[in-house]
Parts: sequence; structure tokens; C-alpha cells
Amino acid sequence: MASSPLNVGLIGLGTVGTQVAERMLTWQSQLARRAGMELCLRRVLVRDLAKRRAVEVDKELLTTNPADLLDDPEINVIVEVAGGEEPMRGYLERAIGAGKHVVTANKVVMAKHGPDLLDLAAEKNVDLYFEAAVGGGIPLISTFRTDLQANRIERLSAVINGTTNYVLGRMAAANLTLDEAVREAQAAGFAEADPTDDVGGFDATYKLAILGSIAYEIKVRPEDIFREGIEGIEPVDFRYARELGYAIKLIAHTQRHPGRIEARVHPAMIPLEHPLAQVEGATNAVFVEGDLVGQVLLVGQGAGGRPTASAVVGDLIDLARSIRRGVQSRPSFTFDDRVAVIPMGEVMTRAYYRIRVDDRAGVLAAIGQVYAEEGVSISSFIQKGAWVEERTAEIVVTTHPSSDASLQKARTAIAKLEPVHAVSSFLRVF
Amino acid sequence: MASSPLNVGLIGLGTVGTQVAERMLTWQSQLARRAGMELCLRRVLVRDLAKRRAVEVDKELLTTNPADLLDDPEINVIVEVAGGEEPMRGYLERAIGAGKHVVTANKVVMAKHGPDLLDLAAEKNVDLYFEAAVGGGIPLISTFRTDLQANRIERLSAVINGTTNYVLGRMAAANLTLDEAVREAQAAGFAEADPTDDVGGFDATYKLAILGSIAYEIKVRPEDIFREGIEGIEPVDFRYARELGYAIKLIAHTQRHPGRIEARVHPAMIPLEHPLAQVEGATNAVFVEGDLVGQVLLVGQGAGGRPTASAVVGDLIDLARSIRRGVQSRPSFTFDDRVAVIPMGEVMTRAYYRIRVDDRAGVLAAIGQVYAEEGVSISSFIQKGAWVEERTAEIVVTTHPSSDASLQKARTAIAKLEPVHAVSSFLRVF
Repeated sequence: MASSPLNVGLIGLGTVGTQVAERMLTWQSQLARRAGMELCLRRVLVRDLAKRRAVEVDKELLTTNPADLLDDPEINVIVEVAGGEEPMRGYLERAIGAGKHVVTANKVVMAKHGPDLLDLAAEKNVDLYFEAAVGGGIPLISTFRTDLQANRIERLSAVINGTTNYVLGRMAAANLTLDEAVREAQAAGFAEADPTDDVGGFDATYKLAILGSIAYEIKVRPEDIFREGIEGIEPVDFRYARELGYAIKLIAHTQRHPGRIEARVHPAMIPLEHPLAQVEGATNAVFVEGDLVGQVLLVGQGAGGRPTASAVVGDLIDLARSIRRGVQSRPSFTFDDRVAVIPMGEVMTRAYYRIRVDDRAGVLAAIGQVYAEEGVSISSFIQKGAWVEERTAEIVVTTHPSSDASLQKARTAIAKLEPVHAVSSFLRVF
Repeated sequence: MASSPLNVGLIGLGTVGTQVAERMLTWQSQLARRAGMELCLRRVLVRDLAKRRAVEVDKELLTTNPADLLDDPEINVIVEVAGGEEPMRGYLERAIGAGKHVVTANKVVMAKHGPDLLDLAAEKNVDLYFEAAVGGGIPLISTFRTDLQANRIERLSAVINGTTNYVLGRMAAANLTLDEAVREAQAAGFAEADPTDDVGGFDATYKLAILGSIAYEIKVRPEDIFREGIEGIEPVDFRYARELGYAIKLIAHTQRHPGRIEARVHPAMIPLEHPLAQVEGATNAVFVEGDLVGQVLLVGQGAGGRPTASAVVGDLIDLARSIRRGVQSRPSFTFDDRVAVIPMGEVMTRAYYRIRVDDRAGVLAAIGQVYAEEGVSISSFIQKGAWVEERTAEIVVTTHPSSDASLQKARTAIAKLEPVHAVSSFLRVF
């Protein structure tokens, strides 16, 4: 056993921080044995000293002053589980600059500033761990960083946002509207008071930026990723999806092309037999294909205090071992700047259109004409649910693969047709 | 980039070795970049120098003399993908003894001698990697060794033998006998000419010994694990299974109890909604539960040249990085000798009995009496398929959890009842 312990400064004592602190305080001897040195919780940065906590942390350890952690030379590692871009990015930069190692669960900071912080960490010869930033306790970063290193990653598809997966599941199962399902998710603790980050696909985009950067060794920035939320989906879409043999999921997808990658987050219809179609509730699943390993599926709880703490403390143990082993020169991440993200318009995909039309002759011909003009080939066509009084009907079209630009042009052109009331729904099909 | 390359001595140039060699020879620059040093294939031990290979390896590199690898001081690492207990165990011991690192895909050697070889490696301050020994390219050893280190592992259930899973799947889908399905698997390249190792559950037992040892940090030896193969299963059992809502799989299972673990490999009925029930063909799946992370499921191709080579070369890259980083003191595995494996008779489980009986009054009463005497509580009871001419009927019983000893005593006692022809099938229920 090394004589000096690893002194930890913990930022954040919320859902995740509480679990991290509890494991460190109640599992000391097991962690010390596995890490090869004592892990010592030396200081905890909180916003409110008086707040009651679910874990018993010595009051002396709590502080509201970041300098008490960041400027304490005795602290070897900063564990950040507070979340949000600033001031956390600045804290982590300052910690690394001061030669401290960092373990973070912060997806926003890692998605937006990960490559820069990793560069800085390499320069300062310290480690920056972030397994907890994506997929809670599912082993993802480590899998890409070590196990799959002999592979060229061909594609990655993931259900990586538990909130939207819960919401879509409830809409499908109980025929709820989006608003109703979101309120249910909020009541069940699966959605924030302001659900925009999840429902709008931002959270999934941050996670895909991190996964894509690691998988392809390029800087995938969140703004490079095509993003569409689940706001436009209506209960009736789930009925059509089922009829056509699909589930509707918010999918984060990235795929390798020669010299470029595609990267997108949007709701999609997925064949019911696809493993991702069966991912229920707040569970996350990541489907990876490597040229040697073939297809690998990794499933688990993608969020929550305990699974995230599992990843954070796992990183901490790995870091301690590395220090204990006398590591002198740490591996730097390399990111290839020459690889670009393909604009969404050029991405080949299939689509589902739900179109409200006047129930009269010539409508089909007019719609068919639009697809033909855009060179989009139709895969299936359903007309049903004529509203006799209104003399309107609903047409559902799915297409064969086409460029997203052509699919969008068809969408716009169809909406402008005289007998068409609206393209009520447009979803990509996997 | 380090100036001196990592010189690799490869043992075996079969299905896996060919893929390892090909990746090393055709992906040199990518591997060097990721590893931080050149990976150089310096010598290959084969049985037959004249054999045609699917990969172009310089004839100069091939040798039939193990000393050309093991005694070459220029070789830093031995990669063993030949398989079988001896002479491979001896080769690896000799390599480690000579201060060489080892990467192996050898499940038999790791299951039977892993703890001893790991002790020797720690003593000699070299690394012994074996990700490829279990589950092909699925990240398992690394997941336990790093990602889940903050957890107490509660249980692990796995479909870890592709051959039997393929065979059971064909029996279920096409109503084949075991022999017919095995012949089909042999023709499809999924089963060996002598299928005993797979069908008898030996292969799964080796893998569970390795996983259990790593998960619980104890020496789980293959002979400690209860083992039963799939030989006794008949097509009709799949029909009853479906009727009762189960699939039949060869399951490797281990579970923590206070101071002891249970560890067993046997065919089992699994609820159709359980993730392992949906694992088809040669796919492997490992379901782990940790006290922090909750449930994690890892799925992929568990065998075959390319997935296994993915794990082998991944290990090689990890090793090269570790050398590049100047690691001075390598982590030793610790195994707790005080934890014992629970004898199967004490394990609590449920069971399914298929019983051929004379179709006459009093049979049910007699069978029910046996269960009552053993304190076994019945969960479901089906009687059907009376063979009128023979005046026999088939009774299917499933039980609530009971000690395996009681379930076995009931099985023996029922078989001895006068109106009972045979207990045609006995399966444990998950």
C-alpha cells in the first residue's frame, strides 16, 4: 500500500455527489485495496452549507469557496459532479492547470470543451477521466479507449436519453400526448422541471459528441451534429409505427464514410426486431459496430445517482492505480481535424410522412408526382381514417433511402399541394 | 513515438491467429499511432510450416520450434491463440518466467491456471492479458477490472457458449432432436467434430470460472462449478417451455451470498421477457448486477476469428501503452481464499419436471405426496398428451424455489413411484 493517500476534492453533493461521498466513506477499505492506496475525501464544494444531505459528511469538509479545493496543493484530484457549463469548465481548467487530475461526470463541458481540456491535461501530464459523462455506469469510454482500439468503428446507434425514452414509451403504451407524458415523467422524477434539454435532443447531442469524438478520434462538436427533438410526435404516430412494424425512439447515430462521418440525433422509427427498439424506460443502450469485433450492444442505467457514482468511483480507482504504478507519461487523445461531419441534407435515410388531405380524387396522383420529381422512391402507402364530415383523410407514406434534402423538399412541396391540409408528421426511418 | 517497437511472438496461426497477424500487418500505422509504438510481428509458432494460410506472413517468421519465441530475448510479448491446456500452460509460464508479457485467448489455461499465472506475472512485474479468453470481443474482463470496481458484484448470468445456443435455438425453431441440431451446427461451422466440450457445458464452465474469479476476486476453479450439459433435452421440452412462457438456454450463473458464492452451468428455462431469453444464434450475452451500477447487459459475438482478434489486438495496444507510459509496478490481482462455492444441493432454485406416467387414478396424488414430503411447493401443473393405446400420459410440473437437494430427492422418489415410467426431463427454472 502506498503511504500517501489520494486526496479528493469533490465538487457537488447532489444526487450523484451524495452517492460518490457515501461509497468513499463507507467502503474505504475495499476501495483502498482495489485502488492500491487510500482514497481520502478531503473537501467538498457545495452551494449551501446548511442543506440537509442524505449522506453524513463531516461539516468541516464542506465549503462554498472553490479556491479551498482548486488552490489546495494537497488535493491530487478534483471530482466534478455538479454539472452545467460554467463555472465548471473554468474550475476544471484551473484544476488541470494546477497539475491536478480530474474525474468528471459533466457531459456539457466534455461535449463542448473535452478536446481542449484533454489537450491541456496531456500538456500538464495529468489524467482527465469522464466515463460518467455518458451512459451512467455503462462502460462506454473505456470500451472505445481500450477494448475496441483494434477496430475501425463503422457505426454507433444509441438510445442515450432516458427521459425521452420514458416519455415515448408512455406515449406508445398509454396513448398519451407529449405534454401528458412529460408531466408523468416529471412526477416520476425522470424529467426536469424544464424538460427542454432532454425533449429537444440537446442532452443526447452532447453525449453523441463525446462518443463520436472518442469513437472516431475527431473533434465532433455538439453544433456539428444534426439535432431534432421529439416535440412533433403525436399519439397516432405510434399506432402507424406499430402497424408498419416499428417503434419510435430518440436515436443518436453516427456512421463512418470515406473521409467524413454522419452524426445526428432525432426521433426515428426503428424495426421492432432491432435491439434498440426493445430498450424500455430510462434504460440506455449503445449499439456499436467495429470492422473486427462486429456488433456489440451495451445496455444499462444511463443516469441516476448510483449508476453515475459507479462510473465516477471506477474512474477514481483507475486513476489511483495509475498513480500507484508510477505512470510517467500519460496517453494523450489525438483528434484528427481533417474528418468532417456530413451536412444532414447529404445523409441518406428513409422517411415516414403522415399527411392530412382532402378526401377527393387526384390527391394520390399529386403526392406521388412530388415524390417522383424529387427522385424519392415509395416503400409503403397507407390511406385510412377518412373523416367523413370534414371530408378529409390521412395518408401515411414511407420511403426508400434518399438524401435527406430530397426528403425535405418533398415534405415542403407536399405541404403546398392544394388538397393537402398539412404534413402532420415527418420522421426518419432506420 | 518510442524508438523501439514491441516485438510480438505469436503462437498459433489458425482462425484467430490469422486475423491477429493480418491486422498487425495491414494496419501497422494505425496500431502504432494508437499504441504509441510500433507493434512488430517477429516470430510465429505453427505446427505445419507448409500449410497454406489465409494471411500472407513472411515464411522467415514461421517456426515450429517454441524456443525460437520463448528464448528470444528480443521478443517482449507472447500472444497465444493456439488453445488447449498443454503445452500452452507451460509455454506461458516459461514466457512469464523469462520476463515476457503475455496476451492469451486461452480459456482452459486461464480457467484452470489463471490465478497461478497472474501471481507469477505479478512477481516478474509483467502483464498477463486475457480479454479474448471469454466472450470474444465483448468487453468483459476490462469491465470488471476497471468500470465496475466501485461495485460489489451481486450476480452474473450469461449465455456464453455460442454452439449450444445455436443448437438449442434450432431445436426450438425447427423441432429438431439434439443430434440433428448438432449435425446442423457442425455443417454450419458452429460446432466442433467432437462437440463434447460445448454440449457438455465444459466450455461455459471454463468461462464462468474466469468471470467469477474476476468478478468476486476469488479463485473459482472449474471443478468447483456445478456443471450439467444440454444432452437430456428433447424437442417436446421446448413446446412446454413456450406454453409456460420460457425459453431454454444453457446458462452460466454466479451469485454472491454472505461469505460464499453460488456458481453453476446448466440448461435452464428463462422467462421470455428476460434479456438472455432473446439471445439468438452464436451471440453471447452477459448480464451483470452491481450494487451501485444496477443491471448491465453486454452482448456481442462470443467467438470466431475476427471478434477474438479484436480483443487480442486491443489487449496488445493496452499493453504497449502501459510500456510506453513507463509503468514501473504492475497491479496484481488479489484472490480471496476464504470465499467458498456453495454446494449445488444447497442452492435455492426452481425446477421443471416432465414425467411419463400410467394414465390412471391416484397418480397425481402420489406425485403430489412426494413433493409435499420434500417440502417442495408446486407452481404449475399440466397434464396432457395421453397416449391412449399405451394408456400413458405426460405430466409437467414446475416448482417454487427450493433447495436443489430437495428437488433432486423429489426427482428420484417420483421416478421410483409404481405408476411412473420415467422422469423424462428435469430442468432448472430461472
